Amino acid sequence: MPANVPFSEEERRGVYRAIYERRDVRSHFLPLPVGDDVLCRILDAAHHAPSVGFMQPWDFLVIRDAAVRKAIHANFEQANQKAAEVYQGERRALYDSLKLAGILEAPVSVCVTCDHNRAKGGGLGRQSDSATDLYSTVCAIQNLWLAARAESLGVGWVSIVDLDGLKTTLGIPAAHTLVAYLCIGYTSEFGVQPDLEVKGWECRESLANVIHFDRWGAQRKDWVR
Amino acid sequence: MPANVPFSEEERRGVYRAIYERRDVRSHFLPLPVGDDVLCRILDAAHHAPSVGFMQPWDFLVIRDAAVRKAIHANFEQANQKAAEVYQGERRALYDSLKLAGILEAPVSVCVTCDHNRAKGGGLGRQSDSATDLYSTVCAIQNLWLAARAESLGVGWVSIVDLDGLKTTLGIPAAHTLVAYLCIGYTSEFGVQPDLEVKGWECRESLANVIHFDRWGAQRKDWVR
Repeated sequence: MPANVPFSEEERRGVYRAIYERRDVRSHFLPLPVGDDVLCRILDAAHHAPSVGFMQPWDFLVIRDAAVRKAIHANFEQANQKAAEVYQGERRALYDSLKLAGILEAPVSVCVTCDHNRAKGGGLGRQSDSATDLYSTVCAIQNLWLAARAESLGVGWVSIVDLDGLKTTLGIPAAHTLVAYLCIGYTSEFGVQPDLEVKGWECRESLANVIHFDRWGAQRKDWVR
Repeated sequence: MPANVPFSEEERRGVYRAIYERRDVRSHFLPLPVGDDVLCRILDAAHHAPSVGFMQPWDFLVIRDAAVRKAIHANFEQANQKAAEVYQGERRALYDSLKLAGILEAPVSVCVTCDHNRAKGGGLGRQSDSATDLYSTVCAIQNLWLAARAESLGVGWVSIVDLDGLKTTLGIPAAHTLVAYLCIGYTSEFGVQPDLEVKGWECRESLANVIHFDRWGAQRKDWVR
């Protein structure tokens, strides 16, 4: 497809729909298989993310094996128990009521890692900020997430997990950074609001509060329409 | 819009077009203004990225002031001169021929920062991995990038820059991390391939080489179709 044809109204709407209707899915996974074809499409979308110096520092582990997912679920349970201890009283009760992972329910997981020593890119763009390779990897994750949404696939990023234990379970070399563990599957619904907003854990910030003009602190609360 | 209507064929094509036709733009910015309406749309897209615990740790600095951009361009020039010294011979000549920023040509820049101490989210999901707030911020950047592509706006991420100097220029508080400096504008073209591929700096990795199954190293070169 030629790269310079403007987006049709409907194509543009598709992009904004993916962005606004994307959810961090944990509760509504369906026990339906995710085919290789669609999985390959969303992984290829991830692989076409921008990367510093065209380094492409990512790897993707596709995990379908139930025994492996069971081990990872146990890791999550333990990490979550520890994480919960930070909260007290009502906040603790609310925390305990949240469903924070769908590792067993989602039929497939994708673990995304970053190789800091990949030769590709020749170091271009990496001298000012050593985190740029991690940032490239996250761009790939967001590409996958939005492509998945367009395919009616839900994705949930599980960040409560012991990373060293997870690396051992999956045999990930020590020098690679484990960036994300994603649960993927068809869902019974995509909520209108994020789960954490529905549950009253947190509300959306006003856009105007996070925009500054030309210099930090120069804000215009009337600018956002 | 109800969240559970499947994407039409054309809406889905829009998502994949944004992903495959997005470019890291440095050379083809046009001297056309970028209106507040479209700028607001892509910033709101960024603001609807996933974030750990619904923390929304990002801030966006919109920079149109020519004097500010001139100072940042000077910062880039100096950082790039230093970066170039790593390369020798033919590789150095190739490096010197690359256009790596469009700070003066693009009419607007957006600097994206991460606030590690934002109260929102209450720390949920942040105990296992302290980088998750940075990852959320990068998800916002990729949302902006794809929305911009759907609006025919090019975006270039300038990673060759002295971060401390840039923070000083923009008055960014020390405790916030400067994640990205993005140049944004309409462009004369979106290349079919990335600039760095066209110029022979680096080529695209085969997708099969970065996919593993159930355990690191278990690869199937015939899997990708």
